[in-house]
Amino acid sequence: MPTIIVDVMPKAELLDPAGKAVAGALDRLGDSTFSAVRIGKRFELTVDGEADDAAVAAARELAESLLSNSVIEDVVSVRVAGE
Amino acid sequence: MPTIIVDVMPKAELLDPAGKAVAGALDRLGDSTFSAVRIGKRFELTVDGEADDAAVAAARELAESLLSNSVIEDVVSVRVAGE
Repeated sequence: MPTIIVDVMPKAELLDPAGKAVAGALDRLGDSTFSAVRIGKRFELTVDGEADDAAVAAARELAESLLSNSVIEDVVSVRVAGE
Repeated sequence: MPTIIVDVMPKAELLDPAGKAVAGALDRLGDSTFSAVRIGKRFELTVDGEADDAAVAAARELAESLLSNSVIEDVVSVRVAGE
């Protein structure tokens, strides 16, 4: 069955303590490739039927109302897996 | 500065209680578009320099050693943002 992927990230201007903790760990491990880390959520929604425009629109609406907190998070992408 | 995105999901064969909870909520809200939900993590790694093959390889190694628990999670993708 087709899958729609929803990516949610903390708003850029907000402090991301978990991301900072991981970035600190990278530093302590001697990694110098990456200067910052931000951590968000990735949802895979299994579609019961066709992953058509209506399903993508329904996923976007759910992403903004149920799967993210619009005060502190942004829905950065809603896409059909494999496209 | 360029960003590398790492996606980590729970292994398919494992129970995903958070995902089940969200799927149950969708049901109660009367949504019938989606039959299952799985929830994972999305990391954005800011690269200090070029997002070249070496940086992507370093991100994959970190993803498998630090950003995911290989017993219960899979690294599903490591890619340069915008590609």
